Amino acid sequence: MAPANKHTDDTFVLDARLEADCEWVADMGLCRLLMMNNKSVPWFILVPRIASATELTHLPMAQQQQVLQEMNEVATMVTQLYTPHKINIGALGNVVSQLHIHVIGRFTHDPAWPGPVWGQLAPNAYSDEQLAKHLDAVRGVLEG
Amino acid sequence: MAPANKHTDDTFVLDARLEADCEWVADMGLCRLLMMNNKSVPWFILVPRIASATELTHLPMAQQQQVLQEMNEVATMVTQLYTPHKINIGALGNVVSQLHIHVIGRFTHDPAWPGPVWGQLAPNAYSDEQLAKHLDAVRGVLEG
Repeated sequence: MAPANKHTDDTFVLDARLEADCEWVADMGLCRLLMMNNKSVPWFILVPRIASATELTHLPMAQQQQVLQEMNEVATMVTQLYTPHKINIGALGNVVSQLHIHVIGRFTHDPAWPGPVWGQLAPNAYSDEQLAKHLDAVRGVLEG
Repeated sequence: MAPANKHTDDTFVLDARLEADCEWVADMGLCRLLMMNNKSVPWFILVPRIASATELTHLPMAQQQQVLQEMNEVATMVTQLYTPHKINIGALGNVVSQLHIHVIGRFTHDPAWPGPVWGQLAPNAYSDEQLAKHLDAVRGVLEG
């Protein structure tokens, strides 16, 4: 959950399903970074803090480039911490219409490989201790 | 299939599975644009013409921004020609490792909705006549 002192803007409100399924990691320059609470794969979600955005390609190009920059930072972090075999990047929004971009580390031994993860992973929440450890590590790399 | 006079570079070779499943649409500034030969959804694939590329975030940022620009052109074309309810954008590469970016028009009545399309669509090839008509329309918008 987002701490009280996170950066917010006046009109952006995180979608309730993303709020329920994910943990707050950080507010980056444009996007809120979330981590899906499913330890089967390292699964991060960038949510541009722009009210009513649904399609990446509807944002002004400067904002799209900022999203791209933040995707790169997250992909680098995922690679450094988890050394996955592949990174999956996706902006779908068929279920949750609020614009959000997935950055997911995939492994040839993960439960959904080689298919996509969406809708294919059984619940597998981190323990509180695991969660704290992962979030600390992720923030450490992003701030490093 | 790509016509003989298409732009090529010396080292890029299109992956054999993409070649088999898709039709050549155009060579854009950086990417080869393909159309998946499945008429259940308007499904386009951008393949940067860079030998050995596998991860979008491994490209130099200027090339990533060029991919982003071409994604925008394709998404605009898909919206104009097909007026989908949602655009899905994805770079997965779990099956075909050659870097490629999907831009897919989705409809609430399409056979895979609201799930992702990958691995979920039965074969549904265009007729030769339909194919020629769609490719003409797509090229017309992209060149317009």
